[in-house]
Amino acid sequence: MSFETKASAVASLAPGAAAPEPARAGNASFKLDNGMEVVVIPDARTPVVTHMVWYKNGAADDPLGQSGIAHFLEHLMFKGTKNHPQGEFSNLVAELGGQENAFTSYDYTAYFQRIGKEHLGTLMSFEADRMRNLVLTDEVVDPERDVVLEERRMRTDSDPAAQLDEAVQAALFAHHPYGTPIIGWNHEIEGLDRAHALAYYERFYTPENAILIVAGDIEADEVERLAKATYGKIPARSAPPRRARTKEPPHRAHRLVTLRDEKVEQPAHEQVFLAPSYTTAQPGEAEALETLAYMLGGGPTSALYETLVVEEKVAVGAGAYYMGSAVDDTRLWVYATPAPGVTLEELDAAIDRVLRRFAEEPIDAEHLQRAKTRLIADAVYAQDSQASLARWYGEALATGLTIEDVVAWPDRMEQVTAADVQNAARKWLDRRRAVTGYLLPA
Amino acid sequence: MSFETKASAVASLAPGAAAPEPARAGNASFKLDNGMEVVVIPDARTPVVTHMVWYKNGAADDPLGQSGIAHFLEHLMFKGTKNHPQGEFSNLVAELGGQENAFTSYDYTAYFQRIGKEHLGTLMSFEADRMRNLVLTDEVVDPERDVVLEERRMRTDSDPAAQLDEAVQAALFAHHPYGTPIIGWNHEIEGLDRAHALAYYERFYTPENAILIVAGDIEADEVERLAKATYGKIPARSAPPRRARTKEPPHRAHRLVTLRDEKVEQPAHEQVFLAPSYTTAQPGEAEALETLAYMLGGGPTSALYETLVVEEKVAVGAGAYYMGSAVDDTRLWVYATPAPGVTLEELDAAIDRVLRRFAEEPIDAEHLQRAKTRLIADAVYAQDSQASLARWYGEALATGLTIEDVVAWPDRMEQVTAADVQNAARKWLDRRRAVTGYLLPA
Repeated sequence: MSFETKASAVASLAPGAAAPEPARAGNASFKLDNGMEVVVIPDARTPVVTHMVWYKNGAADDPLGQSGIAHFLEHLMFKGTKNHPQGEFSNLVAELGGQENAFTSYDYTAYFQRIGKEHLGTLMSFEADRMRNLVLTDEVVDPERDVVLEERRMRTDSDPAAQLDEAVQAALFAHHPYGTPIIGWNHEIEGLDRAHALAYYERFYTPENAILIVAGDIEADEVERLAKATYGKIPARSAPPRRARTKEPPHRAHRLVTLRDEKVEQPAHEQVFLAPSYTTAQPGEAEALETLAYMLGGGPTSALYETLVVEEKVAVGAGAYYMGSAVDDTRLWVYATPAPGVTLEELDAAIDRVLRRFAEEPIDAEHLQRAKTRLIADAVYAQDSQASLARWYGEALATGLTIEDVVAWPDRMEQVTAADVQNAARKWLDRRRAVTGYLLPA
Repeated sequence: MSFETKASAVASLAPGAAAPEPARAGNASFKLDNGMEVVVIPDARTPVVTHMVWYKNGAADDPLGQSGIAHFLEHLMFKGTKNHPQGEFSNLVAELGGQENAFTSYDYTAYFQRIGKEHLGTLMSFEADRMRNLVLTDEVVDPERDVVLEERRMRTDSDPAAQLDEAVQAALFAHHPYGTPIIGWNHEIEGLDRAHALAYYERFYTPENAILIVAGDIEADEVERLAKATYGKIPARSAPPRRARTKEPPHRAHRLVTLRDEKVEQPAHEQVFLAPSYTTAQPGEAEALETLAYMLGGGPTSALYETLVVEEKVAVGAGAYYMGSAVDDTRLWVYATPAPGVTLEELDAAIDRVLRRFAEEPIDAEHLQRAKTRLIADAVYAQDSQASLARWYGEALATGLTIEDVVAWPDRMEQVTAADVQNAARKWLDRRRAVTGYLLPA
């Protein structure tokens, strides 16, 4: 029950270090008659299943003037249905020894449980029930709006770093809805009511807009049987909702966003570049951006960390990441924390020198190979966690990719060349069009 | 046939210097049965009338994803009707010795002719005709889209200063449509077609959404007779369209927008503050902002000009203006052109010192009185031009003000105190939340 931050959005692609193992085969996928997509990922290591339902709508699909409604609905989905009062579903999951979670991102909203495999059918009947029978009365909706407003106060309005992130993204996206925070603008959350929630639920919480992902010790036939008996009973409502999003105009100006607040104890620097996503990129381009971001800022052997923290000692931390999973053009972030006595302007110049090295000087072949090996290993290792494996597929499918795209990703990563990385740096790390963020004490 | 720039938007309130004369009385206003508002402003000095039709929709009412359509429709309104082929109306105005124009702003679109008073009825029948009978075929719409795209190329895409303005306004308004240029984003203009134009025309070009302003040597009774015989024949279509606009969230960060382009020969500095408009302000607040902007940057005796250009010689030009006429919260601009050898950072610091003087030091009583006298005199003088008089009323009514607001404006200006100006400076000239724009050579 959270909204996703930029950090967690890439976690599934780089979840930490471990020994790689071969990619799993044997995935199955099919559609129910009502249009609901089903993906089964076999994983027989433990008698446990991961059950996820992904809706292909996120904050970027919020109707104009109703920002935050995707996240609000995620909250409301825990409020009880015609058949099960509030708390019954969550209590059941807990009693059966399971875990549950839900998250709202820009492009999707997902509901997730992990439980002993014998209980999968029970979970599915509960999850299918709240796809159709959610109770949305004023008594339910109004208090939950206050909960969300309080969540916004705690997570954004009292945190200068979160405020800066919000302002930086608003500056990066002048027109596309990625510039609006997932949790919504405060004054628009305040205006959300039962009618909005109901209209949103009716439009987006439909089988034809949903993807079921089941990973675990279970056969596809069994999943199909259970899915037909639960989700399959929900009639198709209409065509899946179209993602009618405005496109971003080309940018020509650099934007520096400076937030000063007395609560800031540690200044910080961030820089965001607009870049294509796995869904919008030319073939190989997103993989090159992924590699570039990792070489720039993926851990202590990255160029930014080595140069700024280890060699020049102008920063105490530095990194970069590419939010590749997105329906529309997305962001590549570079961030650093200045060492004591170093100004953000000095740090900015030092970062610029590192970025320009990638655009102008030969890419180190060994560094490149190490980055690719590590990214692929991380991804293979991600498959070792049933939840991150399921999440990887869900994220891909919900942003317009295919199962084949996921399966072929390691091969495509292998093909990234030094020229690809350099071209990506030249083309996309254009500071003249980027947004830089400064977090400073008052 | 133009879209309005920020400069022309304030021209009617400060059209230049001349001897004041008393405010005119005797305005009349009434509504036709179909909801169309009519205002008659007597002006018997010459046998000429100014005829304006104002539609209460501008670029900020463009449907999402169709930016530029208000301005596009303004072009299409010159393309001919079922009764009069393209060119007939304009040729007639020219043959009768008249002038015509049209303009699209954020909050309204207006059509304007000035002609010998005996031809008023003819004009009205033509203008009423194109409110109802516009021909919108692919043959009309498609070539005109190319004209608008070319207009955008010439006026914005080949002009770095215009590009910077566009980026500055996009940065100032993260969510409100004033952040979208009046002419539209290029990729959305490209997508406008006959269906969009027709839907827009049907929705907005209705008598209940229009205001007729006639200024000139004519009695209200005669205008009423002519209006009933022309506009009055158009049936009401429905309720006037609602301006369903998103509101801007509060800002907490400063944004510096830097545009570098090899075409730039003269660097420039601008700074924009979000401020209430005459329509959204508390009583007296907009008048205080108007006075503040004039004291800051209205001509060669203003604080910015005297300090930066005359005394410190860090600028070769400087000024400020308040775009008070707006349906929603609006902008107060400060701008300066650096003297040779002066960096924009140095100029910025000098501007900051001038702004802080208004917030922190006593307001010079004589300067205040001079500013008020001049602003009131300018406004009174504006009434000496029939066109600017008509435009003043149209602008006010189209942004939600009343005739009484216009008439009482000089009195309200008289009441502005030094404390009002200082409070406005303290409250609204908050650089921590402003947008600064730098225009620089590549």
